[in-house]
Amino acid sequence: MKVYLAGPDVFLTDAKAISHRKKEICARFGLIGLFPLDNEIDEAAGKADVPLSMRIFRCCTAMMDDADAMIAHLTPFRGPSADVGTVYELGYMAARGKVCTGYSNRRDSYADRIERAPGVAPDCGGLVNLDRDGHVIENFALADNLMVVHALEAFGCPILAPHVEPADIWRDLTLFEKCAEWIARQKRGTAVS
Amino acid sequence: MKVYLAGPDVFLTDAKAISHRKKEICARFGLIGLFPLDNEIDEAAGKADVPLSMRIFRCCTAMMDDADAMIAHLTPFRGPSADVGTVYELGYMAARGKVCTGYSNRRDSYADRIERAPGVAPDCGGLVNLDRDGHVIENFALADNLMVVHALEAFGCPILAPHVEPADIWRDLTLFEKCAEWIARQKRGTAVS
Repeated sequence: MKVYLAGPDVFLTDAKAISHRKKEICARFGLIGLFPLDNEIDEAAGKADVPLSMRIFRCCTAMMDDADAMIAHLTPFRGPSADVGTVYELGYMAARGKVCTGYSNRRDSYADRIERAPGVAPDCGGLVNLDRDGHVIENFALADNLMVVHALEAFGCPILAPHVEPADIWRDLTLFEKCAEWIARQKRGTAVS
Repeated sequence: MKVYLAGPDVFLTDAKAISHRKKEICARFGLIGLFPLDNEIDEAAGKADVPLSMRIFRCCTAMMDDADAMIAHLTPFRGPSADVGTVYELGYMAARGKVCTGYSNRRDSYADRIERAPGVAPDCGGLVNLDRDGHVIENFALADNLMVVHALEAFGCPILAPHVEPADIWRDLTLFEKCAEWIARQKRGTAVS
Protein backbone atom coordinates (compact mmCIF):
# COMPACT_ATOMS: atom_id res chain seq x y z
CA MET A 1 0.00 0.00 0.00
CA LYS A 2 1.41 3.36 -1.07
CA VAL A 3 1.06 6.41 1.16
CA TYR A 4 1.59 9.98 -0.04
CA LEU A 5 3.56 11.95 2.56
CA ALA A 6 2.23 15.50 2.27
CA GLY A 7 3.43 18.41 4.36
CA PRO A 8 5.60 21.50 4.62
CA ASP A 9 8.44 19.08 5.40
CA VAL A 10 9.69 19.76 1.89
CA PHE A 11 10.55 23.30 3.06
CA LEU A 12 12.66 22.17 6.02
CA THR A 13 16.38 22.57 5.54
CA ASP A 14 16.79 18.89 6.46
CA ALA A 15 13.89 17.71 4.29
CA LYS A 16 15.75 14.69 3.03
CA ALA A 17 16.45 13.41 6.53
CA ILE A 18 12.74 13.83 7.43
CA SER A 19 11.76 11.99 4.25
CA HIS A 20 14.07 9.14 5.22
CA ARG A 21 12.65 8.90 8.74
CA LYS A 22 9.05 9.02 7.49
CA LYS A 23 9.62 6.31 4.92
CA GLU A 24 11.33 4.14 7.51
CA ILE A 25 8.31 4.43 9.82
CA CYS A 26 6.01 3.55 6.93
CA ALA A 27 8.11 0.50 6.09
CA ARG A 28 7.79 -0.73 9.68
CA PHE A 29 4.04 -0.84 9.15
CA GLY A 30 4.31 -2.52 5.74
CA LEU A 31 3.58 0.73 3.88
CA ILE A 32 5.48 2.40 1.05
CA GLY A 33 5.93 6.10 1.73
CA LEU A 34 6.01 8.44 -1.27
CA PHE A 35 7.73 11.75 -0.47
CA PRO A 36 7.42 14.65 -2.97
CA LEU A 37 11.18 15.31 -3.09
CA ASP A 38 11.74 11.76 -4.35
CA ASN A 39 10.28 12.77 -7.68
CA GLU A 40 12.54 12.50 -10.68
CA ILE A 41 11.41 15.90 -11.88
CA ASP A 42 13.22 16.16 -15.17
CA GLU A 43 12.37 12.76 -16.55
CA ALA A 44 8.79 12.40 -15.45
CA ALA A 45 7.20 15.75 -16.07
CA GLY A 46 8.08 17.17 -19.43
CA LYS A 47 10.98 18.87 -21.06
CA ALA A 48 13.16 21.59 -19.70
CA ASP A 49 11.02 24.22 -21.42
CA VAL A 50 8.24 23.45 -18.93
CA PRO A 51 8.79 25.64 -15.83
CA LEU A 52 10.28 23.77 -12.86
CA SER A 53 7.30 24.61 -10.64
CA MET A 54 4.90 23.05 -13.17
CA ARG A 55 7.07 19.96 -13.41
CA ILE A 56 6.97 19.64 -9.62
CA PHE A 57 3.17 20.04 -9.72
CA ARG A 58 2.82 17.30 -12.31
CA CYS A 59 5.09 14.93 -10.40
CA CYS A 60 3.23 15.46 -7.13
CA THR A 61 -0.09 14.92 -8.90
CA ALA A 62 1.17 11.68 -10.45
CA MET A 63 2.43 10.55 -7.05
CA MET A 64 -0.96 11.28 -5.47
CA ASP A 65 -2.73 9.36 -8.23
CA ASP A 66 -0.40 6.43 -7.58
CA ALA A 67 -0.98 6.43 -3.80
CA ASP A 68 -3.76 4.65 -1.92
CA ALA A 69 -3.64 6.88 1.15
CA MET A 70 -2.08 10.05 2.53
CA ILE A 71 -0.58 11.32 5.77
CA ALA A 72 -0.89 15.12 5.79
CA HIS A 73 1.36 17.14 8.10
CA LEU A 74 -0.97 19.98 9.09
CA THR A 75 1.01 21.88 11.75
CA PRO A 76 0.16 25.58 11.06
CA PHE A 77 2.67 27.00 8.60
CA ARG A 78 3.33 30.73 8.00
CA GLY A 79 0.07 31.72 9.63
CA PRO A 80 -2.77 30.25 11.69
CA SER A 81 -3.53 27.47 9.18
CA ALA A 82 -1.79 24.50 7.60
CA ASP A 83 0.38 24.86 4.50
CA VAL A 84 -1.90 25.48 1.50
CA GLY A 85 0.04 23.09 -0.73
CA THR A 86 -0.71 20.30 1.72
CA VAL A 87 -4.34 21.35 2.05
CA TYR A 88 -4.77 21.40 -1.73
CA GLU A 89 -3.47 17.84 -1.74
CA LEU A 90 -5.88 16.84 1.02
CA GLY A 91 -8.78 18.08 -1.09
CA TYR A 92 -7.45 16.27 -4.12
CA MET A 93 -6.97 12.97 -2.29
CA ALA A 94 -10.36 13.20 -0.57
CA ALA A 95 -12.12 13.71 -3.89
CA ARG A 96 -10.27 10.77 -5.41
CA GLY A 97 -11.52 8.49 -2.64
CA LYS A 98 -8.10 7.88 -1.07
CA VAL A 99 -7.73 7.16 2.65
CA CYS A 100 -6.91 10.52 4.29
CA THR A 101 -5.11 10.93 7.61
CA GLY A 102 -3.31 13.91 9.09
CA TYR A 103 -1.74 15.41 12.17
CA SER A 104 -0.82 18.76 13.67
CA ASN A 105 1.81 19.23 16.37
CA ARG A 106 0.00 22.26 17.79
CA ARG A 107 -2.72 21.75 20.37
CA ASP A 108 -4.44 25.15 20.32
CA SER A 109 -7.42 25.81 18.08
CA TYR A 110 -7.53 27.76 14.83
CA ALA A 111 -9.56 30.51 16.51
CA ASP A 112 -7.01 30.69 19.34
CA ARG A 113 -4.25 31.45 16.86
CA ILE A 114 -6.01 34.37 15.20
CA GLU A 115 -5.24 37.74 16.67
CA ARG A 116 -8.53 39.33 17.61
CA ALA A 117 -9.30 42.99 17.21
CA PRO A 118 -12.22 44.78 18.81
CA GLY A 119 -15.13 45.15 16.45
CA VAL A 120 -18.73 44.31 15.83
CA ALA A 121 -20.11 42.45 12.83
CA PRO A 122 -23.33 44.20 11.83
CA ASP A 123 -25.02 41.18 10.27
CA CYS A 124 -23.43 37.88 11.25
CA GLY A 125 -25.73 35.99 13.59
CA GLY A 126 -23.89 34.65 16.60
CA LEU A 127 -20.40 34.85 15.14
CA VAL A 128 -19.08 38.20 16.26
CA ASN A 129 -15.35 37.74 16.88
CA LEU A 130 -13.42 39.63 14.24
CA ASP A 131 -9.77 39.43 13.25
CA ARG A 132 -7.65 42.54 12.75
CA ASP A 133 -8.76 42.81 9.12
CA GLY A 134 -12.38 42.88 10.26
CA HIS A 135 -13.16 39.34 9.14
CA VAL A 136 -15.36 37.01 11.13
CA ILE A 137 -13.51 34.32 13.08
CA GLU A 138 -15.22 30.94 12.86
CA ASN A 139 -15.04 29.53 16.34
CA PHE A 140 -15.79 25.83 16.38
CA ALA A 141 -12.87 24.91 18.67
CA LEU A 142 -11.33 22.97 15.78
CA ALA A 143 -7.63 22.60 14.99
CA ASP A 144 -8.02 24.44 11.66
CA ASN A 145 -10.61 25.59 9.13
CA LEU A 146 -13.62 23.28 9.27
CA MET A 147 -13.21 22.01 5.71
CA VAL A 148 -9.72 20.72 6.54
CA VAL A 149 -10.66 19.13 9.85
CA HIS A 150 -13.90 17.49 8.74
CA ALA A 151 -12.43 16.23 5.47
CA LEU A 152 -10.22 13.95 7.53
CA GLU A 153 -13.20 12.67 9.49
CA ALA A 154 -15.25 12.16 6.35
CA PHE A 155 -12.57 10.55 4.21
CA GLY A 156 -10.32 8.78 6.72
CA CYS A 157 -9.28 9.33 10.31
CA PRO A 158 -9.94 12.45 12.46
CA ILE A 159 -6.96 14.80 12.73
CA LEU A 160 -4.42 13.82 15.40
CA ALA A 161 -3.10 16.50 17.76
CA PRO A 162 -0.80 16.19 20.80
CA HIS A 163 -1.80 16.33 24.45
CA VAL A 164 1.49 18.09 25.07
CA GLU A 165 3.23 19.93 22.24
CA PRO A 166 6.54 18.32 21.28
CA ALA A 167 9.74 20.36 21.60
CA ASP A 168 10.24 20.43 17.83
CA ILE A 169 6.81 20.78 16.21
CA TRP A 170 8.34 20.51 12.72
CA ARG A 171 10.24 17.27 13.20
CA ASP A 172 8.44 15.28 15.88
CA LEU A 173 6.95 12.19 14.22
CA THR A 174 4.99 10.67 17.12
CA LEU A 175 1.64 11.51 15.54
CA PHE A 176 2.90 10.72 12.06
CA GLU A 177 3.61 7.22 13.34
CA LYS A 178 0.09 6.94 14.74
CA CYS A 179 -1.31 7.87 11.32
CA ALA A 180 0.82 5.17 9.68
CA GLU A 181 -0.35 2.66 12.26
CA TRP A 182 -3.98 3.61 11.62
CA ILE A 183 -3.60 3.16 7.86
CA ALA A 184 -1.89 -0.20 8.34
CA ARG A 185 -4.72 -1.34 10.61
CA GLN A 186 -7.30 -0.32 8.00
CA LYS A 187 -5.35 -2.26 5.44
CA ARG A 188 -5.53 -5.39 7.54
CA GLY A 189 -9.26 -4.86 7.94
CA THR A 190 -9.00 -4.80 11.71
CA ALA A 191 -11.57 -2.78 13.64
CA VAL A 192 -10.21 0.61 14.58
CA SER A 193 -10.22 1.36 18.29
CA MET B 1 -24.23 25.51 -15.62
CA LYS B 2 -23.67 25.67 -11.87
CA VAL B 3 -20.63 27.42 -10.45
CA TYR B 4 -19.41 26.97 -6.86
CA LEU B 5 -18.37 30.34 -5.42
CA ALA B 6 -15.50 29.50 -3.05
CA GLY B 7 -13.62 32.05 -0.98
CA PRO B 8 -13.13 33.73 2.37
CA ASP B 9 -16.10 35.92 1.39
CA VAL B 10 -18.12 33.87 3.87
CA PHE B 11 -16.06 35.53 6.65
CA LEU B 12 -16.81 39.09 5.54
CA THR B 13 -19.27 40.96 7.72
CA ASP B 14 -21.30 41.72 4.60
CA ALA B 15 -21.06 38.20 3.19
CA LYS B 16 -24.67 38.10 2.09
CA ALA B 17 -24.29 41.25 0.03
CA ILE B 18 -21.19 39.81 -1.66
CA SER B 19 -23.05 36.57 -2.34
CA HIS B 20 -25.83 38.54 -3.96
CA ARG B 21 -23.44 40.52 -6.17
CA LYS B 22 -21.54 37.38 -7.22
CA LYS B 23 -24.69 35.50 -8.14
CA GLU B 24 -25.94 38.48 -10.11
CA ILE B 25 -22.73 38.57 -12.14
CA CYS B 26 -23.02 34.82 -12.76
CA ALA B 27 -26.61 35.23 -13.94
CA ARG B 28 -25.52 37.85 -16.46
CA PHE B 29 -23.31 35.18 -18.04
CA GLY B 30 -26.01 32.51 -17.93
CA LEU B 31 -24.44 30.78 -14.92
CA ILE B 32 -26.00 29.73 -11.63
CA GLY B 33 -23.77 30.76 -8.72
CA LEU B 34 -23.81 28.52 -5.63
CA PHE B 35 -22.63 30.37 -2.52
CA PRO B 36 -21.84 28.36 0.65
CA LEU B 37 -24.00 30.53 2.92
CA ASP B 38 -27.05 29.66 0.81
CA ASN B 39 -26.96 26.16 2.25
CA GLU B 40 -29.99 25.11 4.23
CA ILE B 41 -27.74 23.64 6.91
CA ASP B 42 -30.29 22.11 9.22
CA GLU B 43 -32.37 20.35 6.66
CA ALA B 44 -29.74 19.05 4.32
CA ALA B 45 -26.96 17.77 6.52
CA GLY B 46 -28.20 15.69 9.36
CA LYS B 47 -29.84 16.20 12.69
CA ALA B 48 -29.06 18.74 15.35
CA ASP B 49 -26.84 16.21 17.14
CA VAL B 50 -24.32 16.51 14.30
CA PRO B 51 -22.02 19.47 15.09
CA LEU B 52 -22.78 22.62 13.11
CA SER B 53 -19.29 22.68 11.58
CA MET B 54 -19.77 19.13 10.22
CA ARG B 55 -23.15 20.05 8.81
CA ILE B 56 -21.56 23.03 7.04
CA PHE B 57 -18.84 20.72 5.69
CA ARG B 58 -21.42 18.28 4.33
CA CYS B 59 -23.47 21.03 2.72
CA CYS B 60 -20.43 22.57 1.03
CA THR B 61 -19.35 19.15 -0.22
CA ALA B 62 -22.81 18.46 -1.64
CA MET B 63 -22.78 21.89 -3.29
CA MET B 64 -19.38 21.18 -4.87
CA ASP B 65 -20.58 17.80 -6.12
CA ASP B 66 -23.58 19.54 -7.67
CA ALA B 67 -21.50 22.22 -9.42
CA ASP B 68 -19.84 21.99 -12.83
CA ALA B 69 -17.22 24.63 -12.19
CA MET B 70 -15.77 26.86 -9.48
CA ILE B 71 -14.54 30.42 -9.04
CA ALA B 72 -12.07 30.47 -6.15
CA HIS B 73 -11.34 33.76 -4.41
CA LEU B 74 -7.64 33.36 -3.56
CA THR B 75 -6.63 36.76 -2.16
CA PRO B 76 -4.19 35.93 0.68
CA PHE B 77 -6.13 35.51 3.91
CA ARG B 78 -4.62 35.63 7.44
CA GLY B 79 -1.11 35.06 6.13
CA PRO B 80 0.81 34.96 2.86
CA SER B 81 -1.45 32.32 1.26
CA ALA B 82 -5.08 31.91 0.29
CA ASP B 83 -7.73 30.73 2.76
CA VAL B 84 -7.18 27.01 3.39
CA GLY B 85 -10.89 26.21 3.22
CA THR B 86 -10.96 27.60 -0.30
CA VAL B 87 -7.75 25.78 -1.23
CA TYR B 88 -9.15 22.48 0.09
CA GLU B 89 -12.14 23.04 -2.19
CA LEU B 90 -9.87 23.78 -5.16
CA GLY B 91 -8.15 20.42 -4.64
CA TYR B 92 -11.48 18.68 -4.31
CA MET B 93 -12.94 20.25 -7.46
CA ALA B 94 -9.76 19.63 -9.48
CA ALA B 95 -9.79 15.95 -8.57
CA ARG B 96 -13.47 15.67 -9.49
CA GLY B 97 -12.71 17.01 -12.96
CA LYS B 98 -14.65 20.27 -12.54
CA VAL B 99 -13.66 23.45 -14.39
CA CYS B 100 -11.47 25.43 -11.96
CA THR B 101 -10.93 29.18 -12.11
CA GLY B 102 -9.68 31.60 -9.49
CA TYR B 103 -8.45 35.10 -8.79
CA SER B 104 -6.41 37.04 -6.26
CA ASN B 105 -6.67 40.79 -5.74
CA ARG B 106 -3.02 41.04 -4.69
CA ARG B 107 -0.34 41.47 -7.32
CA ASP B 108 2.80 40.61 -5.35
CA SER B 109 4.18 37.07 -5.30
CA TYR B 110 3.93 34.49 -2.51
CA ALA B 111 7.67 34.79 -1.89
CA ASP B 112 7.37 38.59 -1.68
CA ARG B 113 4.85 38.29 1.14
CA ILE B 114 7.01 36.07 3.33
CA GLU B 115 9.17 37.89 5.82
CA ARG B 116 12.72 36.78 5.25
CA ALA B 117 15.23 36.20 8.00
CA PRO B 118 18.96 35.88 7.50
CA GLY B 119 20.06 32.27 7.39
CA VAL B 120 21.68 29.60 5.32
CA ALA B 121 20.15 26.26 4.39
CA PRO B 122 22.88 23.64 4.71
CA ASP B 123 21.49 21.18 2.17
CA CYS B 124 18.93 22.75 -0.17
CA GLY B 125 20.45 23.20 -3.60
CA GLY B 126 19.73 26.64 -5.04
CA LEU B 127 16.88 27.55 -2.73
CA VAL B 128 18.47 29.41 0.12
CA ASN B 129 16.00 32.08 1.18
CA LEU B 130 14.65 31.21 4.60
CA ASP B 131 11.65 32.56 6.48
CA ARG B 132 11.83 33.62 10.10
CA ASP B 133 11.12 30.05 11.24
CA GLY B 134 14.10 28.80 9.23
CA HIS B 135 12.01 27.24 6.46
CA VAL B 136 12.98 27.40 2.82
CA ILE B 137 11.03 29.91 0.73
CA GLU B 138 10.07 28.52 -2.67
CA ASN B 139 10.70 31.33 -5.08
CA PHE B 140 9.00 30.72 -8.40
CA ALA B 141 7.54 34.24 -8.70
CA LEU B 142 4.06 32.74 -8.45
CA ALA B 143 1.01 34.27 -6.76
CA ASP B 144 0.86 31.47 -4.16
CA ASN B 145 2.13 27.96 -3.42
CA LEU B 146 2.83 26.17 -6.70
CA MET B 147 0.19 23.47 -6.13
CA VAL B 148 -2.52 26.13 -5.93
CA VAL B 149 -1.34 28.15 -8.91
CA HIS B 150 -0.66 25.25 -11.26
CA ALA B 151 -3.87 23.41 -10.33
CA LEU B 152 -5.77 26.26 -11.96
CA GLU B 153 -3.64 26.01 -15.09
CA ALA B 154 -4.01 22.22 -15.21
CA PHE B 155 -7.72 22.01 -14.46
CA GLY B 156 -9.12 25.25 -15.82
CA CYS B 157 -7.87 28.79 -16.33
CA PRO B 158 -4.63 30.30 -14.98
CA ILE B 159 -5.09 32.41 -11.85
CA LEU B 160 -6.15 36.00 -12.52
CA ALA B 161 -4.38 38.84 -10.70
CA PRO B 162 -4.73 42.62 -11.10
CA HIS B 163 -2.32 44.98 -12.86
CA VAL B 164 -3.20 47.53 -10.19
CA GLU B 165 -4.56 46.40 -6.84
CA PRO B 166 -8.15 47.51 -6.25
CA ALA B 167 -8.91 49.79 -3.30
CA ASP B 168 -10.90 47.03 -1.56
CA ILE B 169 -9.15 43.72 -2.18
CA TRP B 170 -11.90 41.81 -0.37
CA ARG B 171 -14.87 43.14 -2.28
CA ASP B 172 -13.64 44.09 -5.74
CA LEU B 173 -15.23 41.73 -8.26
CA THR B 174 -13.52 42.81 -11.48
CA LEU B 175 -11.50 39.59 -11.69
CA PHE B 176 -14.39 37.50 -10.42
CA GLU B 177 -16.35 38.75 -13.39
CA LYS B 178 -13.53 37.77 -15.75
CA CYS B 179 -13.61 34.24 -14.31
CA ALA B 180 -17.35 34.02 -14.87
CA GLU B 181 -16.90 35.26 -18.42
CA TRP B 182 -14.20 32.65 -19.05
CA ILE B 183 -16.43 29.83 -17.78
CA ALA B 184 -19.34 31.05 -19.90
CA ARG B 185 -17.11 31.13 -22.96
CA GLN B 186 -15.97 27.55 -22.27
CA LYS B 187 -19.58 26.55 -21.95
CA ARG B 188 -20.38 27.94 -25.37
CA GLY B 189 -17.40 26.07 -26.79
CA THR B 190 -15.84 29.25 -28.09
CA ALA B 191 -12.06 29.33 -28.39
CA VAL B 192 -10.51 31.09 -25.42
CA SER B 193 -8.35 34.05 -26.30
